[in-house]
Amino acid sequence: MAREETKDSATHETIEEMPVGIDATGHRKEFDSMGDVEVPADRYWGAQTQRSLQHFSIGDDHMPAAVYHAYGYVKKAAALVNARAGRLEQWRADAIIAAADEVIAGKLDDHFPLYVWQTGSGTQSNMNVNEVIANRAIQLLGGTLGSQTPIHPNDHVNMGQSSNDSFPTAMHIATVFALTEHLLPALDRFATAIEAKANQWMDVVKTGRTHLQDAVPLTVGQEWSGYAAQVRDAMENVHRSLDGLYRLACGGTAVGTGLNAPEGFSADIAKVIADLTDEPFVTAPNKFAAQGSLDAMVAAMAAVRGVAVALMKVANDMRWLASGPRCGLGELLLPQNEPGSSIMPGKVNPTQCEAMVMVCIQVMGEDNAVGFAGSQGNFELNAMRPIIINNALHSIRIIGDVCDKMRTYSIEGTELNRSRIDAAVGDSLMLVTALAPVIGYNAAAQIAETANADGSTLKEAALKSGAVDEKTFDDVVDPRKLVGDGVQGA
Amino acid sequence: MAREETKDSATHETIEEMPVGIDATGHRKEFDSMGDVEVPADRYWGAQTQRSLQHFSIGDDHMPAAVYHAYGYVKKAAALVNARAGRLEQWRADAIIAAADEVIAGKLDDHFPLYVWQTGSGTQSNMNVNEVIANRAIQLLGGTLGSQTPIHPNDHVNMGQSSNDSFPTAMHIATVFALTEHLLPALDRFATAIEAKANQWMDVVKTGRTHLQDAVPLTVGQEWSGYAAQVRDAMENVHRSLDGLYRLACGGTAVGTGLNAPEGFSADIAKVIADLTDEPFVTAPNKFAAQGSLDAMVAAMAAVRGVAVALMKVANDMRWLASGPRCGLGELLLPQNEPGSSIMPGKVNPTQCEAMVMVCIQVMGEDNAVGFAGSQGNFELNAMRPIIINNALHSIRIIGDVCDKMRTYSIEGTELNRSRIDAAVGDSLMLVTALAPVIGYNAAAQIAETANADGSTLKEAALKSGAVDEKTFDDVVDPRKLVGDGVQGA
Amino acid sequence: MAREETKDSATHETIEEMPVGIDATGHRKEFDSMGDVEVPADRYWGAQTQRSLQHFSIGDDHMPAAVYHAYGYVKKAAALVNARAGRLEQWRADAIIAAADEVIAGKLDDHFPLYVWQTGSGTQSNMNVNEVIANRAIQLLGGTLGSQTPIHPNDHVNMGQSSNDSFPTAMHIATVFALTEHLLPALDRFATAIEAKANQWMDVVKTGRTHLQDAVPLTVGQEWSGYAAQVRDAMENVHRSLDGLYRLACGGTAVGTGLNAPEGFSADIAKVIADLTDEPFVTAPNKFAAQGSLDAMVAAMAAVRGVAVALMKVANDMRWLASGPRCGLGELLLPQNEPGSSIMPGKVNPTQCEAMVMVCIQVMGEDNAVGFAGSQGNFELNAMRPIIINNALHSIRIIGDVCDKMRTYSIEGTELNRSRIDAAVGDSLMLVTALAPVIGYNAAAQIAETANADGSTLKEAALKSGAVDEKTFDDVVDPRKLVGDGVQGA
Amino acid sequence: MAREETKDSATHETIEEMPVGIDATGHRKEFDSMGDVEVPADRYWGAQTQRSLQHFSIGDDHMPAAVYHAYGYVKKAAALVNARAGRLEQWRADAIIAAADEVIAGKLDDHFPLYVWQTGSGTQSNMNVNEVIANRAIQLLGGTLGSQTPIHPNDHVNMGQSSNDSFPTAMHIATVFALTEHLLPALDRFATAIEAKANQWMDVVKTGRTHLQDAVPLTVGQEWSGYAAQVRDAMENVHRSLDGLYRLACGGTAVGTGLNAPEGFSADIAKVIADLTDEPFVTAPNKFAAQGSLDAMVAAMAAVRGVAVALMKVANDMRWLASGPRCGLGELLLPQNEPGSSIMPGKVNPTQCEAMVMVCIQVMGEDNAVGFAGSQGNFELNAMRPIIINNALHSIRIIGDVCDKMRTYSIEGTELNRSRIDAAVGDSLMLVTALAPVIGYNAAAQIAETANADGSTLKEAALKSGAVDEKTFDDVVDPRKLVGDGVQGA
Repeated sequence: MAREETKDSATHETIEEMPVGIDATGHRKEFDSMGDVEVPADRYWGAQTQRSLQHFSIGDDHMPAAVYHAYGYVKKAAALVNARAGRLEQWRADAIIAAADEVIAGKLDDHFPLYVWQTGSGTQSNMNVNEVIANRAIQLLGGTLGSQTPIHPNDHVNMGQSSNDSFPTAMHIATVFALTEHLLPALDRFATAIEAKANQWMDVVKTGRTHLQDAVPLTVGQEWSGYAAQVRDAMENVHRSLDGLYRLACGGTAVGTGLNAPEGFSADIAKVIADLTDEPFVTAPNKFAAQGSLDAMVAAMAAVRGVAVALMKVANDMRWLASGPRCGLGELLLPQNEPGSSIMPGKVNPTQCEAMVMVCIQVMGEDNAVGFAGSQGNFELNAMRPIIINNALHSIRIIGDVCDKMRTYSIEGTELNRSRIDAAVGDSLMLVTALAPVIGYNAAAQIAETANADGSTLKEAALKSGAVDEKTFDDVVDPRKLVGDGVQGA
Repeated sequence: MAREETKDSATHETIEEMPVGIDATGHRKEFDSMGDVEVPADRYWGAQTQRSLQHFSIGDDHMPAAVYHAYGYVKKAAALVNARAGRLEQWRADAIIAAADEVIAGKLDDHFPLYVWQTGSGTQSNMNVNEVIANRAIQLLGGTLGSQTPIHPNDHVNMGQSSNDSFPTAMHIATVFALTEHLLPALDRFATAIEAKANQWMDVVKTGRTHLQDAVPLTVGQEWSGYAAQVRDAMENVHRSLDGLYRLACGGTAVGTGLNAPEGFSADIAKVIADLTDEPFVTAPNKFAAQGSLDAMVAAMAAVRGVAVALMKVANDMRWLASGPRCGLGELLLPQNEPGSSIMPGKVNPTQCEAMVMVCIQVMGEDNAVGFAGSQGNFELNAMRPIIINNALHSIRIIGDVCDKMRTYSIEGTELNRSRIDAAVGDSLMLVTALAPVIGYNAAAQIAETANADGSTLKEAALKSGAVDEKTFDDVVDPRKLVGDGVQGA
Repeated sequence: MAREETKDSATHETIEEMPVGIDATGHRKEFDSMGDVEVPADRYWGAQTQRSLQHFSIGDDHMPAAVYHAYGYVKKAAALVNARAGRLEQWRADAIIAAADEVIAGKLDDHFPLYVWQTGSGTQSNMNVNEVIANRAIQLLGGTLGSQTPIHPNDHVNMGQSSNDSFPTAMHIATVFALTEHLLPALDRFATAIEAKANQWMDVVKTGRTHLQDAVPLTVGQEWSGYAAQVRDAMENVHRSLDGLYRLACGGTAVGTGLNAPEGFSADIAKVIADLTDEPFVTAPNKFAAQGSLDAMVAAMAAVRGVAVALMKVANDMRWLASGPRCGLGELLLPQNEPGSSIMPGKVNPTQCEAMVMVCIQVMGEDNAVGFAGSQGNFELNAMRPIIINNALHSIRIIGDVCDKMRTYSIEGTELNRSRIDAAVGDSLMLVTALAPVIGYNAAAQIAETANADGSTLKEAALKSGAVDEKTFDDVVDPRKLVGDGVQGA
Repeated sequence: MAREETKDSATHETIEEMPVGIDATGHRKEFDSMGDVEVPADRYWGAQTQRSLQHFSIGDDHMPAAVYHAYGYVKKAAALVNARAGRLEQWRADAIIAAADEVIAGKLDDHFPLYVWQTGSGTQSNMNVNEVIANRAIQLLGGTLGSQTPIHPNDHVNMGQSSNDSFPTAMHIATVFALTEHLLPALDRFATAIEAKANQWMDVVKTGRTHLQDAVPLTVGQEWSGYAAQVRDAMENVHRSLDGLYRLACGGTAVGTGLNAPEGFSADIAKVIADLTDEPFVTAPNKFAAQGSLDAMVAAMAAVRGVAVALMKVANDMRWLASGPRCGLGELLLPQNEPGSSIMPGKVNPTQCEAMVMVCIQVMGEDNAVGFAGSQGNFELNAMRPIIINNALHSIRIIGDVCDKMRTYSIEGTELNRSRIDAAVGDSLMLVTALAPVIGYNAAAQIAETANADGSTLKEAALKSGAVDEKTFDDVVDPRKLVGDGVQGA
């Protein structure tokens, strides 16, 4: 039978030291079940990758490298489990593992050229991984590239797997890495920088604003503590979303039943992946849900959307508080990083905040696409995987990056314009609020309205009203007393 | 001073038994700090409610009654805390509490007429509550409606509160109730009904489908177990989102500093609200975040979006599997609830699934609005509260309702078309997958392609290929063996 | 045959004068092809309406009355065309037309109780119309309610129609009315009010702001002319979207082929609808597209979204320019419509702007749902009609309403704070831009930076720099000269 | 004065032949109003570009090259207008024009490295263009790179312009090109391919489907004519959206007043751009709207969203109609482009349709971001330009590309499975609809329900009912007669 021949043609069983790369030019013949295909001779990929390149060159969006790095863990783990179970010869497993390690390390990135807009299962990218690992392993074993022997992309590299279970597994791994290694650390640095400012300015009294209108005072530190709290809360939700991502589809194979994977494979491979990555991955308790949906990805993306919602408020506040320099609120002085106008000399703009705001809107738009795509599964497969993983990784990337940029180039160097802040506190009519418990809401309102109408100070209007004497006024209407006690406020 | 006068004018300090309602016609004069306003004489509301009715009669969208019921708890709790602390006379507190209990019970719903599209802080609805409770309490104490004495809407009912902290508190309470009393129970019933079907059909082998194309088999029960698992996972995320909602802004007053609320007020009122509602509410650790953002609402809405994403897949699967009766997939027989066409006699449609799909899309659209609005806070206030609470409560309402309808009128009565299911399993060429580990992927592919091309059965093509003998074929290609073991599949 | 019997049972052929209403209590038996159903005796609806009420009581969202009013035109037009062609006896047509006229006039609104979340084709609402018109016509002819004779809901009222072509026809009619009679007039009033202000303030020089930062001056009138131009441009796009809505599906019947409608029916009924409504409706050139998609609705909704995008900018500008009264930009004085705070006496907020912003976000969320739903058609039907028409009519309603409110209660009464405006113009360092063509960008930038750093005026810094003499400075840096010429600006 | 010195330092006034490129290594000193910056010596960009590279390296999203190509036209047109008016020496203009032509031709693409997430006005990209053109022009004139003489990036290349008017001008130009040269031609090819199939199959009768359920028949050609009509209608809306894009902001300069641009500049530069591009560009009638909003971009994007909505329906229909090969609808045979599964041998999937569906969802998500961003303008600037142009150009690119791929690799090679189509037509019970006008709706419904319940054919059930005789049945229930007349259907 065909398979026996394949086995017989394995001539070498030891891995040779060999740098990554193929010293060849022109084209090489590769084949798959549909026939022969010419591929560039200096690339490891095979027939199915080449077919996809031809059929799906849409835009410039390429499947993120992080997906392939994550896939390296899947292929390595599968080889380890298959070898331990005696289903895969150890020498074959060793060759696959060696190649997979190179995939994980990013050494083979140039050999994963496919586009995002391809088959909805990600099969073409899985086959790209299978083909590259097979050919690289064949090379390491001294075989002939494109021969599919002694390492076959489907029979050996893909053993016990389907794209249907392995691709979402790679998605989860890649997203966990992106969240834990990129986004959460960036958010922590961002929140920490804000908290440092909050602490520094905890006693600087400023006017509060609600509805954009003057309100009672608080301290700058309190205001900034609110920013930090929003970011910390958003981080907590991101953390929680990891739980869903830790559940891996691997072992479900084609439709969730685990066909062609031996008993115990799903738990075993999840365990090995957990060991390799040092993240608490487990096998998904229900493979039909894990492959028919991408709900854990949708939930993780929603948590990232929550980060964007929080950060947009922070960035908007900062650019408004820094508006001016002379005709705006003018309470914050942001670092001046670059000239702001091609026509207005000396103009400087809150560009880091603007970049942040745009990134946040982009993330919200991408979350919208992810939610939509997440709803479009059918039967045993949600065939919207490439769009979901691409948007998720992109959103995580840009929002993490912009956090670092805004922190470094705007937040850390922000200073206060104390004279503006102090003047506003003194001007605000809303200090009248402190009088309300003493003289009643209605009488207090009359005072504020009088002052607003005739331009007098609050004290002038209060004394004129006869509702309060000067000593009481001075005692009660003291901004410093009105701001409560630190971060807790109330 | 003005306030002393107010106190003096209190003539009664005991609550009279008096049914809800005002026996009067025409109009009554009410006033606020801007002056006098005529209100309908048979309504409890006051000047500010009337002003809002005039200025904001936009569409037919009214602030949900659930917000007012929740607000009843806030006002009751504030009165309890204020009275215990000696800041509010017990008889005043008692009258406020009696009126608040009627608000909670929905007895005063006709007195909350305001629109959703009003001030972004919800102040007008807070004042509506303050005015209605004040007038009802005045009535219970034998006073004169509209006199603001002996119960003043701001000085007594709103004591220690601002709209800025009390409205988001009411939002959280109302949303927690909607999630725990409406959505989660409906989802549990929905999942339970699906699980019952999954168990019933756990051994019925059917063809799997991926990319809408024939795939290897699984059982109907396995497929339905995936639906249930999606719903259960979505419920878990809803549960988690409650944590953020349990944190209440109350006590932060105007800008989060707690101005005009005494020390300890925020923790005390959260504790009382927790006691009254039997839900684990606590005071928000940072009031500036709690009032400047609505991030916990955005996160809860995202969890509801997750429910929609899951349910849309389930509903789409069911209507596709029931497509036909003769020219579709035809595997499921849904209950026939009504004629489906005004022109095609005898036509019956998967209408419950369609209602579900539309509701899911609506929820996703409303989540989009909530996320957008959540990002638009400024300084000490997110002035997008009405749009957020209205969308959240609406989404929760309709998706909970449609779960009950679809369960009752579609899922529970669904039956299998066994002949269609069995025929499809036998026809599917993808059973060839079982041969791949025996004869290799490429040889197996050749068999499937041959059968597809010439219309032969898989067995005919397999034997003709010479790659496998009849005994092996019959042993390996047995659909029943290919479906794994129950819900776990793999 | 059955149909002949139906004809025979018609005993009266003249319409009696009879007010709307059924003088009966309890229940009445109605029937459809699935059997008997009890309906409330005082309602005109029949069995299918009752079934839908039972199966689809989801939330509180009811199919908008405007859909039924529009459907009245469809039924009237069909009766006219059928009678002219001799397919429907004139006396039957007359009775149907009389009832349809009552539907159009809103006299039968209480008899259309169905929910939005029903069958995706709108068949249940079509049958509701058929049943109500049939029973009302039977009543007018002296027949027995529920007998389906001499007027049958399907055979006569629905003659030549299917829900599949008539419901989208009613959607288009209702949306055209909502746009031309509600939204566009409200936008025109809104733009006109802004234009009046723009003209009034065309010569008031103020500081421009870009990136929220001080920029070169323009006039208040120029700024407001921009608001008006945005609204006018948005109106133009709404107008254009009417073209798609004017194309009616009617005549396509079940799947677009026109089965059971005679030749010429589609063109004839469109012509009659155009005559009855005085709007240029025509028959859709391709019925398969007209019934399989709702693309014209999606495009119209996109135009409404464009209105929201424009209005949100206007509302945000106004509330920011009115921010203060003392610690914000403070250039605009909005009318004070109501007290703004339950705790801060004398506070007034830009509440009309806030309502506008929330409505705009809601419209964008609903547009999101409409676009999603529009993409979900299958084969000969887009079964997302109820969600689309409900969102479209709702969005049109609330954005039209809020335009009138904001215009009446905010824009028309807005005044300028001239002292703030004048002070800001004088303070702005960006007047330096006028010097750039004279002394070069770099030298001008140095001047602005010096002034900003040491707090000097622009003139002081300019003279100190030596790059310009006083006469040149005074001549060039004159705000009034820098604002160009009226609305055209450049 | 400084500017005179600049003029004096111009030593060469003739352009030398010189290939693109700088033969230098290491770094070169550049400066701007904030001081000196080191840039790579082999790049033309200057200080501000380098600052942006440092401050905004966020993700991998780069400002699309198409924006720079469009900007080339703006700079060339400005130089032409400025020279004609005698404000810019002809030799300077010639050098700028020569460099701008290279920008237009894409020869300087490597010198535009900036990221999307930068200043919201696009100033940094405008300065990138100014700096590159200045240095290239300096090189062509034999000057010293980085000297800003004899060509100054602001004073000469940016003469009469601001980023605030020139960037949206470049956005409009780039989008018009993308729509007219990429998307509309691709859609036309796509629609044409569908129309060819529609014509080919105009007489092939098939079963219709509504609500996914069997309905009355139509022809395959009619169904496909609906697809083509949807695409043609969507194209019409794209065409209409060009009108808004043809209106250019150029000449408004910093805030719309045209400060520092001479009278007539805006009309003149629009005219020159129209001549250079052969597109009917005109000056925007209101510059304040043109710079304070991006409404024309939002409207154009909405039209692209409309394309996505239409195409998603087409792609979904095709993959469903091709579902199978044995257990689905199976009416279409799509080309088999690649193996579809890594585990299921012989599986082939509708991958082109899947790519199309994902692209459509992506476009809808990006439209969501564009609408959101479009609403976020403030005062004289919408500082959301980079996010809007990037999403718009990206969406146009990928949806145009996928149209060509799906057309080439799926639509053009699609064939019919006539046996499946014919069998379905014969099986469908909905042919009973043709009997309804003869025997009434209710009697017809009984026949269909009987057939459905007992599995008999429609004819058997009809004759058994006694409501119709065989001759009538055969005459009336003839699928070929039920499909109307070609594309018009009705």
